[in-house]
Amino acid sequence: MNTTFLNACQGLPVDYTPIWIMRQAGRYLPEYHTVRRKGSFLDLCKTPENAAEVTIQPVDILGVDAAILFSDILVPLEKMGAPLEFREKQGPVFPTPIRDRAAVEALGIPDPEDDLGYVMDTIRILRRELADKVPLIGFSGAPFTLATYLIEGGSSKSFFHTKMMMYKAPELYRDLLTKITDCTIAYLQGQIAAGAQALQIFDSWVGVLAPCDFAEFALPYVRRIITALKATTSEVPIIYFANNGGTLIDQSLTSGADVLGCDWRVRLDEVVRQVAGQVSIQGNMEPLALFLPPDKLKTRIQMVLDEARGARGHIFNLGHGIVPETDPEQAKLAVHLVHTLSRRK
Amino acid sequence: MNTTFLNACQGLPVDYTPIWIMRQAGRYLPEYHTVRRKGSFLDLCKTPENAAEVTIQPVDILGVDAAILFSDILVPLEKMGAPLEFREKQGPVFPTPIRDRAAVEALGIPDPEDDLGYVMDTIRILRRELADKVPLIGFSGAPFTLATYLIEGGSSKSFFHTKMMMYKAPELYRDLLTKITDCTIAYLQGQIAAGAQALQIFDSWVGVLAPCDFAEFALPYVRRIITALKATTSEVPIIYFANNGGTLIDQSLTSGADVLGCDWRVRLDEVVRQVAGQVSIQGNMEPLALFLPPDKLKTRIQMVLDEARGARGHIFNLGHGIVPETDPEQAKLAVHLVHTLSRRK
Repeated sequence: MNTTFLNACQGLPVDYTPIWIMRQAGRYLPEYHTVRRKGSFLDLCKTPENAAEVTIQPVDILGVDAAILFSDILVPLEKMGAPLEFREKQGPVFPTPIRDRAAVEALGIPDPEDDLGYVMDTIRILRRELADKVPLIGFSGAPFTLATYLIEGGSSKSFFHTKMMMYKAPELYRDLLTKITDCTIAYLQGQIAAGAQALQIFDSWVGVLAPCDFAEFALPYVRRIITALKATTSEVPIIYFANNGGTLIDQSLTSGADVLGCDWRVRLDEVVRQVAGQVSIQGNMEPLALFLPPDKLKTRIQMVLDEARGARGHIFNLGHGIVPETDPEQAKLAVHLVHTLSRRK
Repeated sequence: MNTTFLNACQGLPVDYTPIWIMRQAGRYLPEYHTVRRKGSFLDLCKTPENAAEVTIQPVDILGVDAAILFSDILVPLEKMGAPLEFREKQGPVFPTPIRDRAAVEALGIPDPEDDLGYVMDTIRILRRELADKVPLIGFSGAPFTLATYLIEGGSSKSFFHTKMMMYKAPELYRDLLTKITDCTIAYLQGQIAAGAQALQIFDSWVGVLAPCDFAEFALPYVRRIITALKATTSEVPIIYFANNGGTLIDQSLTSGADVLGCDWRVRLDEVVRQVAGQVSIQGNMEPLALFLPPDKLKTRIQMVLDEARGARGHIFNLGHGIVPETDPEQAKLAVHLVHTLSRRK
């Protein structure tokens, strides 16, 4: 097996810097569209054969060092009892936002196999089909990020209702987050049992929090998830990706994660300094740098590799998801460049 | 005159921490709506008597230590030759985005008095009516932020077209930014001549740039503006507000600004450490903290004041604009708390 990714997560020696790309299974690939056209986005998430197919596509096409389960962070919320729709142009919508005690009480904790079996089946198919070619990453959203969707009723710019609950109804907020955390622990334990070999926790919106609010309203729930998972197994590395979290690195370091994912707004050498060898780091090329001419793309990749020098382990990635307009050839070139430029002489 | 704000900008001794609030003249005040109802948003910007009236409202109502000109960062762009509309719910729109050589060439440099006289008149009225009660802050957008509106044709989430121009047509980008910079220098020099006693440069969207891109595509233009203004006068302090710029502070420090404005994502004690007494700092309470119950609001304000201890000078502000849903009484309370909690014993 290509263990480069797993070794880098744990700070073990590697021959070259491994790379995978957030949203590597997705709309920039014509092969993805072929499968996607068979139904809705949620249909694709819920059809294990198809979800597995698009998961494997970038492994074959780009040559990345890890596969990541094709799914969406919101699917477990639907099974908590919050109906979910994906509307064209509007994105995910929860038509009934969760904003009062009764709504929080009504939420349940889904069972991974009984309620989210399609995700577990996708993982099992993938482990069989990947046949140890590269490791498989499972994932979930982080509780704060998941809560914003439930409270706002979908995506948000101001996160007004979420912060109102934090500030004006902190006990209700805490109870909601506790429930989401319990759900996430069960969901990720299910993914481990089904065969996930690493896990990433996406805190996509946490960058809207002041550091003191992160400490109170987001980090404790992440820490509880990681503590529970580590009690289950120490074999599965955990990546915590706090998007736009450049000012939260000192705190994220205490999450218990093996790897901190970094968005493109930070200098990795500054992150290396802050984490001081305690964790590995992942990231963080600006996603649109994939549109640079090849010579400048090479320079940019070299810069990221240079900045990450001194890390206990470095997994190359973009600082956010690859955008749909990206030329797959450029993504392929980036993977090739990361591999060749980083290879130990 | 209340010189507390100006003294804090320059690191001179003050009896208490001055405060003003971004968007302090605005939709959270019923008194603002009374004036605003007389016409469109752009009408208000272009009618000096009315713009002056809403500028003064928060000085009287809240007791803040500075007034800031009521206007919009986009008005000079209109006079560069880019028609501007404010559409309900959609915000500012430039129906003809600037994306090619011909469009850049067609832009002109407006004369502050001939083309933007309504802004200069507003400043003159304000200096007369404020009668040195508090100082008047003028402002502009920073070139990168202004360019994003022109290139995207309005607000954006991905800044795709802006980054495409940066990466694929860097000379065109540079020429556009140079023109915007020239316009901004003339505009701010006009504001100084009309009577502005301090200036804030708003880089609202610069937080979407990687540090290396900030160094190449944004900071040099800010630096050129400040250098030109400082050659005109050393009497007018300049505040550079790089929103979501927590990872750009080391570079912002070289902008030449007297004050760095900080959004709420950073810890001010960390900023104090980084700027090491070279500049004053402004900020940075989470805007929605104004919805906290009074006792917790007090704690939050004390926290911000404590974190700023050790700064050469501190101007209290929110980390971003006050939101329309805010209760004016809470804003008033915040001003009172900042003044009383910070007063030197």
